[in-house]
Amino acid sequence: MFEIITEDGTARLGKLKVNGREVETPFFMPVVTKGAAKFINNKELEQVGSGAIICNGFILSIAPGLDILKRTGGIHKFINYKGVVFTDSGGFQMYSDKFLEKTTDEGIHFKDPIHGEKLLITPEKSMEIQNTVGSDVAMCLDDMPLYGATKERIQESVLKTINWAKRCKEHHDEIKKEQLLFGIIQGGTDPEMREFCARAITAINFDGYAFGGLAIGEPSEETFAAIKAAIKFVPKEKPRYLMGVGTPELILEAVSMGVDCFDSRYPTMTARNGTLFTSKGQINIDKKDFALDEKPIDEKCDCFTCKNFTRAYIHHLTRLKEPTGNTLKTIHNVTWIQNFMKEIRKAIKEGRFETFKKEFLKK
Amino acid sequence: MFEIITEDGTARLGKLKVNGREVETPFFMPVVTKGAAKFINNKELEQVGSGAIICNGFILSIAPGLDILKRTGGIHKFINYKGVVFTDSGGFQMYSDKFLEKTTDEGIHFKDPIHGEKLLITPEKSMEIQNTVGSDVAMCLDDMPLYGATKERIQESVLKTINWAKRCKEHHDEIKKEQLLFGIIQGGTDPEMREFCARAITAINFDGYAFGGLAIGEPSEETFAAIKAAIKFVPKEKPRYLMGVGTPELILEAVSMGVDCFDSRYPTMTARNGTLFTSKGQINIDKKDFALDEKPIDEKCDCFTCKNFTRAYIHHLTRLKEPTGNTLKTIHNVTWIQNFMKEIRKAIKEGRFETFKKEFLKK
Repeated sequence: MFEIITEDGTARLGKLKVNGREVETPFFMPVVTKGAAKFINNKELEQVGSGAIICNGFILSIAPGLDILKRTGGIHKFINYKGVVFTDSGGFQMYSDKFLEKTTDEGIHFKDPIHGEKLLITPEKSMEIQNTVGSDVAMCLDDMPLYGATKERIQESVLKTINWAKRCKEHHDEIKKEQLLFGIIQGGTDPEMREFCARAITAINFDGYAFGGLAIGEPSEETFAAIKAAIKFVPKEKPRYLMGVGTPELILEAVSMGVDCFDSRYPTMTARNGTLFTSKGQINIDKKDFALDEKPIDEKCDCFTCKNFTRAYIHHLTRLKEPTGNTLKTIHNVTWIQNFMKEIRKAIKEGRFETFKKEFLKK
Repeated sequence: MFEIITEDGTARLGKLKVNGREVETPFFMPVVTKGAAKFINNKELEQVGSGAIICNGFILSIAPGLDILKRTGGIHKFINYKGVVFTDSGGFQMYSDKFLEKTTDEGIHFKDPIHGEKLLITPEKSMEIQNTVGSDVAMCLDDMPLYGATKERIQESVLKTINWAKRCKEHHDEIKKEQLLFGIIQGGTDPEMREFCARAITAINFDGYAFGGLAIGEPSEETFAAIKAAIKFVPKEKPRYLMGVGTPELILEAVSMGVDCFDSRYPTMTARNGTLFTSKGQINIDKKDFALDEKPIDEKCDCFTCKNFTRAYIHHLTRLKEPTGNTLKTIHNVTWIQNFMKEIRKAIKEGRFETFKKEFLKK
């Protein structure tokens, strides 16, 4: 399960063990929604140190479909990835992609984003899906208010999320075979609601706890106020997962608050637009300044792209929107963020995380 | 330059040496128009045995532009590719992409496909471009009739091509620094015109000869009739290049006629559509049959994709149009065709090319 190796202030170095797989925390999960991240394959994800990934249970249940996943031996075998696989219920996708019809006490009503059919997903159904997909860690079905929602909407979402979490836990207990289940704490950017939700969700006793519905447009002070209000109710010995984060800055802040797991499209999505991580801050490779720059993207980076290609070449491919440019940029950003997580873990181990954080943020 | 190692009937095994680079013939060149092939990077091209590639001199002269290529050390360094680089004049692109305004005796008038400006490219200009790009082998500017053109259009194109070839050769002799120049034989699918053009072009004395304007929609008998009519005038000691081919079947036929070099988008373009080479013929991975198929694309293939992923997974990614699926399929097809060329060279070396060809075509 989860083991804390060492603490440095409120930051923690740990190990998440499940089904014979093991990943050190804090870790960052690339988003592998449909069984592949964009422009980087699962072997490359492993090679650059991605010890865990997150897939979308719901999407995978539609394509390739549960029957195929079952008959070909489950998600790890189907996508050939050896690390820890998380699945999200897919609820987030339904909200953000506007396939949502409505949510009722029963569950989420929405249009299947691939075939267009009307579907209802209940907490029980979500547990069955994620169990059949065969992930190592399943996430509860939750109800997420968008940023800027009214107090009423946030309250409604919190009550629904708590109710669904109980149903998830109950059903998961009945069907589970070696799969962890994480509860999700909602509450928008309202600290009181976050606290209320955290108390109720932690009372259900999950294997880990996630902060959901954050990093969706709110200022980062509100993100951290929401985490702060909730995290004190999350048992120290359980892993804590901040969903949808993202940038090196937010990761550092959250790690120092005691968060262990992260996932985000940010490194892969921004790579395609030309926003690239470097040890001196982010650069936009599309800028004219790079047309003649024969240095690698980041001189301190050991990724395939930095070992082989110049900024000038990546700039050229970005300008022409060449897909091979997307691949090279994605490999860089994912390698970079995994190296960054490794440095965070090392800093915690050596008891100098706050110094590391300060020095990084100075750049 | 070019050296024939051994002959097997009219098929030949040889070596093309230029600027300290060396590639065995017959070889197949992936199309790296803008400095990158689609969904496979230049290091991967090298790794899978692509000893030569073809870039588009004209496109590169617009982006990144000649100034940048000159200041960053030329094409090999800019794109980080160690093999032999051919450049096409870019004429073919201008025709096929319908940016053509008109051709006059002076040259080709067309719209720059990137910025939309009206441009004129003359034989002299094309030589300067390709020389500055820094390729190892430059191609003459030629005039290409589309398939189905009238006899008059074909005649006009042949005369223009011969005239431009003389001007290319003259100008190239003045400016050249360690770059080979290949003449291009046109003549549509008219054997007489092919013969006429071959006599005139070979009289100019180039470093190698190409058959242009073929594999653009004509039946393959017409392709071979055109090559047959022309190839007897091409000196045996010079390399022969069939432009725009392509499929394993056409390559085999052309090799047995004495052709040494090939290039085509076929392996990379069809890969994206799901058409994949196997030792038992082509398959379309998009077909339902493959949804549960846990074998690799080709059990005899040693490519990265076949070593790591199943047909079922590639089928899934193809259905969902995932870019990472394009990468995996492209790596397979390019590796496969390069392994195929290696087998062709081995068969010639061992004096059993015709048997190899027959056995392959049986499948």
